[in-house]
Amino acid sequence: MSEVVNFPRTVEWRGGLPGILRLLDQTRLPLEEHYVELRELAAVHDAILRLVVRGAPAIGIAAGYGVALGLQTERALAPAVFAARARAIAAYLESARPTAVNLAWAARRVVERVEREQARGADSGALLEAALDEARAIAREDEAMCEAMGAHGRRLVPRSGRVLTHCNAGALATGGIGTALAPLYHAARAGQKIAVYADETRPLLQGARLTAWELSRAGLDVTLITDSMAARVMAERRVDAVFVGSDRIAANGDVCNKIGTYGVAVLARHHGIPFYAVAPSSTFDLTLAHGGLIPIEERDAEEICAGFGRRTAPKAVRAYNPAFDVTPAALVSAIVTERGVIEPVDEKNVRAVLSAASG
Amino acid sequence: MSEVVNFPRTVEWRGGLPGILRLLDQTRLPLEEHYVELRELAAVHDAILRLVVRGAPAIGIAAGYGVALGLQTERALAPAVFAARARAIAAYLESARPTAVNLAWAARRVVERVEREQARGADSGALLEAALDEARAIAREDEAMCEAMGAHGRRLVPRSGRVLTHCNAGALATGGIGTALAPLYHAARAGQKIAVYADETRPLLQGARLTAWELSRAGLDVTLITDSMAARVMAERRVDAVFVGSDRIAANGDVCNKIGTYGVAVLARHHGIPFYAVAPSSTFDLTLAHGGLIPIEERDAEEICAGFGRRTAPKAVRAYNPAFDVTPAALVSAIVTERGVIEPVDEKNVRAVLSAASG
Repeated sequence: MSEVVNFPRTVEWRGGLPGILRLLDQTRLPLEEHYVELRELAAVHDAILRLVVRGAPAIGIAAGYGVALGLQTERALAPAVFAARARAIAAYLESARPTAVNLAWAARRVVERVEREQARGADSGALLEAALDEARAIAREDEAMCEAMGAHGRRLVPRSGRVLTHCNAGALATGGIGTALAPLYHAARAGQKIAVYADETRPLLQGARLTAWELSRAGLDVTLITDSMAARVMAERRVDAVFVGSDRIAANGDVCNKIGTYGVAVLARHHGIPFYAVAPSSTFDLTLAHGGLIPIEERDAEEICAGFGRRTAPKAVRAYNPAFDVTPAALVSAIVTERGVIEPVDEKNVRAVLSAASG
Repeated sequence: MSEVVNFPRTVEWRGGLPGILRLLDQTRLPLEEHYVELRELAAVHDAILRLVVRGAPAIGIAAGYGVALGLQTERALAPAVFAARARAIAAYLESARPTAVNLAWAARRVVERVEREQARGADSGALLEAALDEARAIAREDEAMCEAMGAHGRRLVPRSGRVLTHCNAGALATGGIGTALAPLYHAARAGQKIAVYADETRPLLQGARLTAWELSRAGLDVTLITDSMAARVMAERRVDAVFVGSDRIAANGDVCNKIGTYGVAVLARHHGIPFYAVAPSSTFDLTLAHGGLIPIEERDAEEICAGFGRRTAPKAVRAYNPAFDVTPAALVSAIVTERGVIEPVDEKNVRAVLSAASG
C-alpha cells in the first residue's frame, strides 16, 4: 500500500492465539477515530448489534474472527464438544443481526472448517488454529476482492479524477479498500489526483459520517453535498463520473443500492455522465430476472422525522422511508466486479463475467 | 374560505388603532403552533431578524405592518416630523434583513403613502391611519395574488390529486394560501382529494418543518420523504405532477428556486411527469435573459455539516452549499402567475402573460 492512500483498518485480528479483535468504532465517526479491542465473545455480539462494525463484508469478517475469539477459551473441551461449541457461538453471533447474510455466511464457514478438521481427528488446539486460519482467509479474500475491483475499475476513473459517490461503499464497509471507492484508491495510489463529491445520503448520512471521513483520512480531496445538490454539481460540470456500490444485483444487471442511487443515475444520464456500480460477484442474485423482484425494506419514519438528536418534522406526520431503490441496467454504464467489468450491462454480459475465473 | 382547508394566519394585524401585530412563530414549528403578539417596533425588528417570520411575501407584510406599529406611539409629532419618523422606522426594519427585497419594498411603500398624505396636508392621526391602510392593502393584495394563482393553477392539478412539492411555498411564506400550494388548496376546497409527497428539503428542512406541518394542519394528506426518495416515488407512479415555487424567474422562463428543485425537474421529465412553477409576476426579472445570469448564494458549510443539533460530518471537511439552483425553461411544463398560466414556457409567452391585466 502506498503512502498516498492511508485508510483505517476497520476489522483486524491482533496477535496470534490468544489474540484480540480490534474494530474501528463506527458509531463514534466522524468525530473520533476510536478503536475497541474485544477479548470476549459477548463483546463481539454487542459490537455487531450496536453497529460498531457495519457494511456487509466487514460484518462478515468480524463474525468470522468472532467465532475464533469465542473458541479461544474452549481448547480444553473435547474435539466434538469444541465443534458443537463453535456452532453455538455462530448461532449466537448471527442473532445479533439476523438479516445480515454475510454474517451468517462467514460464521458458518468457520464452523464448517472446524467440523471438517474435527472429522479428520484434529485435537481442539488444532481446531482453534483452523478457526482462526479460516477467519483470516475470509478477511484476506475480501481484501483481495476489493483490490481486484479496484484494478478492474481503475480504467473507468475519468482523467479529471472528478467523481461523485452516494452512501459509503469504501474501506469502512469492507476488509479492504471498499467497492465503489476501490477504483478511486487505485487511481490515487498511482498518483492520479482524485476529487470526490460525496452525497450526504439521507436519512442515515453515511456519506457525511463515513465517506467524507474515510476519503479525508485517506488523503483524497472530498467535498460534501446534500443529496439535493447532485443535480447542480452535474450541471456545473464538476464531476465526470459516478461510482456507487450495490446491495444486490439482478440477473439482467438492475442494481439495488441505498435509496437515492436511482435518482443519481437518472441525473447522470441526463447530463451525459457515466454511472458505474462496483460490487463483488457475491452481490449478484441470478435467481432474480430483474430488479423489480428485489424486496425493498421500508424503515421507520423516525429516521426521517427525528434523525439526529432533534425532531425536525411534525409529530403525527406520515413518512415513506424505503431503504433502497433499484437502478435499471439501462442507466448503468458498467458494473465492476472482482472478475472483470460488465459493459454494456445486460444479462449475457452479467453471466459471461460472473462465470470467468476470479481476479 | 371553506372548512376543508384550514391553515394558519402567518401575519395578522389585530385590532384597529392602536392594534397589535400577531405572527405565527415559525422558529417553533413544527412542534408548536405558537403566536407572538408584537406591540413595539423593536419586537418586529427582532422577529424578522430571528426568522419568526420568513418567506418573501410574509416578511414584506410584516414590515408594512411594522411601520404602522412603530408609528402608533408617534401621533403627537408634527406631520413633517411624523413622516421623517416613518422613514427612520423603515430603515430600521430594513436593517434586520438587508437582502430581503420584499421587506424594503413594503416598508418603503408605506412610507411613500405617508409622505404623499403629509404633502397633501394631513395631520399625524390621519397619517397613522394611512400607514395602517397601506399595510393592510399590501396584505390584501398578497392574499388576492395567492388566490389568483390558485385559481389559474387549479386546472393543472392532476385528477388523481397526487403531487410532489419541494421546499415551502405555502401559506407560511405568504399573506394568503401560498404559491406552489395555492392550486392544491383550491382543488381541496372544491372537494378534490389531494395527496402530497413533500421533499424534506435539505439542508434547512423547510419541507419537513413547514410544508408537512402546514399541509397536515390544513387537513390535506401529506407524506414526508427525503429528497433522495423523489426518484423512487416517481418510478412507483405515486405522483402525477410536481408543484414548486420560485425565488426568481428569468425572461426566458428559467426558474431559480431552492436547491434541489432542478434535480426534481430532471426526474419529473425522465418519468414523464409535468413540472409546474407557481410564482407572482413580481418574481420575474426581465432584465435577465436567462437563468445562468442569476447569482446563486453559497451558504455556510455548517448547515450541511451540523444541521440537526449534532455534528454529522468530520470537522475539517469541505462542503459545497449553493442555496438555489436554476431549472431551465425546457424542463418547466408551465409557470402559473396571478395573471395567468405561461405554457409552454418561453420568452414570448412570459412577456405576453406578464403584460396581461392582473387577475
